Amino acid sequence: MKVSELDTPCLLLDYHAMERNIATMAAHFASRSAKIRPHFKTPKTPEVARRQLAAGAIGITVAKLGEAEVLVDAGLGPILMANQVVGRQKIDRLMALLARGAEITVAIESEFNIRELAEGAKRSGQEASAIIEVDSGMHRCGTGDPAETVRLAGLLEESGIRYRGIMGYEGHAVLLPTEEERRDKGSAALAIIDRHVEALAEAGFPPEIVSVAGTGTFAIAGDWPGVTEVQAGSYVFMDGRYQAVMPGVFESALTLLTTVVSVHERYAVCDAGLKSLTGEFGMPASIDGRIQVRGLSEEHAHLVGEGFAALRPGDKIELLPSHGDTTLNLHDVYNLRRGDEVLEQWPILAARKFR
Amino acid sequence: MKVSELDTPCLLLDYHAMERNIATMAAHFASRSAKIRPHFKTPKTPEVARRQLAAGAIGITVAKLGEAEVLVDAGLGPILMANQVVGRQKIDRLMALLARGAEITVAIESEFNIRELAEGAKRSGQEASAIIEVDSGMHRCGTGDPAETVRLAGLLEESGIRYRGIMGYEGHAVLLPTEEERRDKGSAALAIIDRHVEALAEAGFPPEIVSVAGTGTFAIAGDWPGVTEVQAGSYVFMDGRYQAVMPGVFESALTLLTTVVSVHERYAVCDAGLKSLTGEFGMPASIDGRIQVRGLSEEHAHLVGEGFAALRPGDKIELLPSHGDTTLNLHDVYNLRRGDEVLEQWPILAARKFR
Repeated sequence: MKVSELDTPCLLLDYHAMERNIATMAAHFASRSAKIRPHFKTPKTPEVARRQLAAGAIGITVAKLGEAEVLVDAGLGPILMANQVVGRQKIDRLMALLARGAEITVAIESEFNIRELAEGAKRSGQEASAIIEVDSGMHRCGTGDPAETVRLAGLLEESGIRYRGIMGYEGHAVLLPTEEERRDKGSAALAIIDRHVEALAEAGFPPEIVSVAGTGTFAIAGDWPGVTEVQAGSYVFMDGRYQAVMPGVFESALTLLTTVVSVHERYAVCDAGLKSLTGEFGMPASIDGRIQVRGLSEEHAHLVGEGFAALRPGDKIELLPSHGDTTLNLHDVYNLRRGDEVLEQWPILAARKFR
Repeated sequence: MKVSELDTPCLLLDYHAMERNIATMAAHFASRSAKIRPHFKTPKTPEVARRQLAAGAIGITVAKLGEAEVLVDAGLGPILMANQVVGRQKIDRLMALLARGAEITVAIESEFNIRELAEGAKRSGQEASAIIEVDSGMHRCGTGDPAETVRLAGLLEESGIRYRGIMGYEGHAVLLPTEEERRDKGSAALAIIDRHVEALAEAGFPPEIVSVAGTGTFAIAGDWPGVTEVQAGSYVFMDGRYQAVMPGVFESALTLLTTVVSVHERYAVCDAGLKSLTGEFGMPASIDGRIQVRGLSEEHAHLVGEGFAALRPGDKIELLPSHGDTTLNLHDVYNLRRGDEVLEQWPILAARKFR
């Protein structure tokens, strides 16, 4: 099948660009003590995670249990769950995965988390493993005070939960527009992590895992003493926003194929709206930048830019999403492409996992 | 099952509030010559459409073929497709629905649309029906010149496609903050529709269907001479943005149940992010307004407002989405609730229809 024969809107994944992105990241970490444990919230399909593991990734990072369930079904891991597991239903889902033999370490940030985890482990007879999430400046979840981090490490041990280390995600730094700003903010975040690591080590809890960073800070974090792993995810597809702030490192592998449905004097309209393409992190554009999206409604994008004038109804064009993660989540399959050829379809299994 | 026992994030649908919204809209149109053909892009489940039809709706409006396919599978219609059907794959899907006996009228706006539709009808031996979309001021799709509208009506007849009338959607007016502004902009849009209707009538193409309006302009449009039907959809669930601009007309029936996962001095965090809750049309809030969302990342919402301080990890709270349509599209089921009781689950069948 040809790309031009696909019904739209649909996702196109350049298989070889993706493979090169995986290889580039793998090569970066091959000679370093820190390793890559790529985030599954970007690809959401075991097909990609399997290739990342084959290239040397030490495991997979996930955002939620639904993603972990997809990986365990595919026999992939070990898994780092980079968020807290909260509530009886979710604790029981985690225990069910551990009972299947999965190796999963979850992030905790409070005594409440430790109590829920310990109770779940006791109910199910499983051994839980945890790392402590530190707030390294993004101000979302995580402990802010090294003394609290040390207290939680002690509580983990008392509660019979295997203490494995700490994590922090400098989400406030990863998308800053220049490398210098990312280095400044990223380094400040890693210095906060250092203070928690030092306090833990002094108290007799040296961390085995120190997990940090995203695609915008992977290089800074990979060279930071003490960091053991990097949880970057976006690099594998490299969306528009990341490509704008750090061009030339990875290739844009994921685009949305869309059909022009209406052409007017000053704009055209295609069949890609907020139900198939995110508006997060700004508007999408064609890879060459000649067609820009001015606005998105539910089922339509308004196209402008120097390239719009050549468009005719029925034309198929590709748009590069500003944010891959909140776009691919809206779809069912990746159409793997090489040029105009569709090689295969991969179901985006974890896009339909809602919690 | 109790609402508090549901795993989160998930959608709660207040069954009786929804029923009252359907009844309120039905009562409004019972005594008018214009009728309601509610938009399916909001509920996306036949369970709601069936109840709207039972209450007197003259059919269902859809945004895309995937929605029409769900309705035809459920035996519901007649269907007005309020967008153009563009491209060979979609034309063939439309013809397949007609071959199953479905009554579907589609919007066209160009000679290109008419040619594709006529060729599809010829290929399949089906009779196609169309209305002409007019640009009534939103500047998305549709003809701008009454002479062009008349020319297209003639081309439809020449092409063997049943000409049924026109439609326009004043999307630029429906969410304006005051009733006066909605009346001014809405009336201006309807006056544009009038000019096309007059030109069509003079040329011997009096429209059988004149379809317009959304929830924010249903009352204005329902009293406008010549309008035969209103394609409002949001009223059935009544999201936060609509409730803010037209309070007291319909009830907020759809909320997102979410769990508090992290509590800090100045904010709390819950497990609802852009993968389960839209950021379109502003940030969500609790129905009483005491908890506000300051920002959404992929899996988290930052909670502030006077109500946040009482929150504890594990608490379940409800948020009213700013826009229902781009929120429910992210989910698999509605949990029908009466107070704290879960009555039933309805799959959101058309949320998984991507095109």
